[in-house]
Amino acid sequence: MQTGSPIITLTTDFGMQDFYVSAMKAVILGINRDVRLIDVSHEVPPQDIMAGAWITRNSAFLYPSGTIHLVVVDPGVGTSRRPVAVRIKDQLFVGPDNGIFSLIADQHPHDAYELTNTSFWSNERSSTFHGRDIFAPIAAHLSKGVELDTLGVPIDTLISYRWALPVADSEGVQGWVMHIDRYGNLITNITREMLEGMPVKNGVKIYVGNTILKEIVRTYADVDAGSPAALVGGSGHLEIAVNGGNAEELLSGQKGMPISVLFRR
Amino acid sequence: MQTGSPIITLTTDFGMQDFYVSAMKAVILGINRDVRLIDVSHEVPPQDIMAGAWITRNSAFLYPSGTIHLVVVDPGVGTSRRPVAVRIKDQLFVGPDNGIFSLIADQHPHDAYELTNTSFWSNERSSTFHGRDIFAPIAAHLSKGVELDTLGVPIDTLISYRWALPVADSEGVQGWVMHIDRYGNLITNITREMLEGMPVKNGVKIYVGNTILKEIVRTYADVDAGSPAALVGGSGHLEIAVNGGNAEELLSGQKGMPISVLFRR
Amino acid sequence: MQTGSPIITLTTDFGMQDFYVSAMKAVILGINRDVRLIDVSHEVPPQDIMAGAWITRNSAFLYPSGTIHLVVVDPGVGTSRRPVAVRIKDQLFVGPDNGIFSLIADQHPHDAYELTNTSFWSNERSSTFHGRDIFAPIAAHLSKGVELDTLGVPIDTLISYRWALPVADSEGVQGWVMHIDRYGNLITNITREMLEGMPVKNGVKIYVGNTILKEIVRTYADVDAGSPAALVGGSGHLEIAVNGGNAEELLSGQKGMPISVLFRR
Repeated sequence: MQTGSPIITLTTDFGMQDFYVSAMKAVILGINRDVRLIDVSHEVPPQDIMAGAWITRNSAFLYPSGTIHLVVVDPGVGTSRRPVAVRIKDQLFVGPDNGIFSLIADQHPHDAYELTNTSFWSNERSSTFHGRDIFAPIAAHLSKGVELDTLGVPIDTLISYRWALPVADSEGVQGWVMHIDRYGNLITNITREMLEGMPVKNGVKIYVGNTILKEIVRTYADVDAGSPAALVGGSGHLEIAVNGGNAEELLSGQKGMPISVLFRR
Repeated sequence: MQTGSPIITLTTDFGMQDFYVSAMKAVILGINRDVRLIDVSHEVPPQDIMAGAWITRNSAFLYPSGTIHLVVVDPGVGTSRRPVAVRIKDQLFVGPDNGIFSLIADQHPHDAYELTNTSFWSNERSSTFHGRDIFAPIAAHLSKGVELDTLGVPIDTLISYRWALPVADSEGVQGWVMHIDRYGNLITNITREMLEGMPVKNGVKIYVGNTILKEIVRTYADVDAGSPAALVGGSGHLEIAVNGGNAEELLSGQKGMPISVLFRR
Repeated sequence: MQTGSPIITLTTDFGMQDFYVSAMKAVILGINRDVRLIDVSHEVPPQDIMAGAWITRNSAFLYPSGTIHLVVVDPGVGTSRRPVAVRIKDQLFVGPDNGIFSLIADQHPHDAYELTNTSFWSNERSSTFHGRDIFAPIAAHLSKGVELDTLGVPIDTLISYRWALPVADSEGVQGWVMHIDRYGNLITNITREMLEGMPVKNGVKIYVGNTILKEIVRTYADVDAGSPAALVGGSGHLEIAVNGGNAEELLSGQKGMPISVLFRR
């Protein structure tokens, strides 16, 4: 049961130096001025669908039941890519069907709808700003209780992308850096679940470029200040950090950089 | 008729790395804790009045009736430039009278007041931070229903700046880049309305530095990935973009760069 | 007496390009969906405790009575540094006990508690993201009226850091630049209160690198456009600015740079 004002979160690659975010907020409030707007991020790198998917995957399901997530990273705006609204677990998602929901829709059953009922869109529609003209009004109408099947027609599958999975064998696992955060932490595609099934308790060697780390520690300060550490971070993924420093700088880290974890014999 | 909590939007060049934005929010909530605060942008380039005017022009009138817009880009703080509050259409605006309202006040009738009643300002007033000490409290008092004519005295004209208009003749129109967004899109001062009165249907040649574009397309993906395109964007202005790329980088775009549209014979 | 929805402000060094801020907001709303969230800043320089302390010092006490301030700059996350909640004047503060409250706790009596009652933390706890797993839920529970002494045990002292104070003698005062804002203003550790006790009325010479300023003016525009000025800014500290320009660039300003104020004879 939902109580209180409905919540709409906003995740975009619009940046904050333009009117784009404000226009979306304005359109939403124009339709439902009681809605609560929560900025998730507008600093997704431009047109980086997987970065938007990553942010969504790591926080959406922490929100209260019934939260509406407006997620607009939309390099194909104005083409035939479908606008969609999706229910996953107890949350609602609105955005382009371009893979932005890849990291959540694959893990859970979901009901997806292509948005076809233009009577819930803005009357004036540009070909380049569907965030304002389609997705924002749809999110606002959802917040007023309009049902998904009123807004469009059910579809079977969403576009889905996956990061390449790590490759594991009896000697170890090879993954790569899929995200670098503001602290310069190198976040890999190797998850806690993968590591838990592996013989890492006996010790490991982790190759990060020319640097070799000899253990997976618990927190940053388990190594000396200025030293690199491997640990499982807040997202549940193996990350390479530097205590009080910046691993991206110290280790010349890059997105896509290979990270190898070798088991000890 | 206005229902629900009043809305105050905030547009500044303060950035988010300082206490300036927080101080304004705190002062507002201290006077009216029921108000809703909406961040429009705090990333207006420092002291760039016209950039603030551009953001305001493109989203303010999308907000619900009665919204109060606090717009503070104020290089002349502490001088004799007047603090003002203005009603335009069904919206209220508060800020310095330095041209920040140029792109909205000229298009609509408005009632402008110089803020002279210091009893609605903060008791302690700095000479360098009127956002906190004058404009924020005024916006908060407006949100509680205080009338404009209680806050100051009517004035006839606001300071107004205009971007240079494009120059058109029978051969074409010459404009320039007045804004570059986060995607590197080059947004010109040539509007859809201007183009609709011109013989562009027969084809055009658009000169962007050394690059010539041969048509105005509908959306980014109407050209090949990595190719430049000319189109009318979400603000209603002609813009130069690159499908999946960055026009600023690819075409060495700059603010002030001339853009020529020549008609075909 | 507190009326209306409780307010939680957020101050972090997380940046907005990641899921970290969103995760904290989500956890709070999951516990108390009626709370109002106010972004103070997420652009504190990474791991810069004193920059976070400076922002907190300059805006926290402007908020309405009972506001809860969540302040998370936490380079020692996962170590033995204590999680704390503190009442200072009529405000509540939650964060790590690492000096982040230095610039407010020293000036006022305060009641500090170490957060020891893990039943108010998240069930799943990482070693690297206490913002989400400890501090956010604590702030949310405080907003629902849980008392400080339910959350932990009283402690006598908080970790406290102070910037080095300026050194004064009969000839003048030597301070230094402790913060540079978005406009390039060089904000020093010399306060209005210090200056008021000094013979500056007869004139001063202020040494900023190779530049000598001859007076303390009232506002930026009291000097010619493009010229440097010394004045007391909105934080009550002496700052060096350039009218319509950028003192950091013009004067090669740096954090830590000495600023000398010599009195005239």
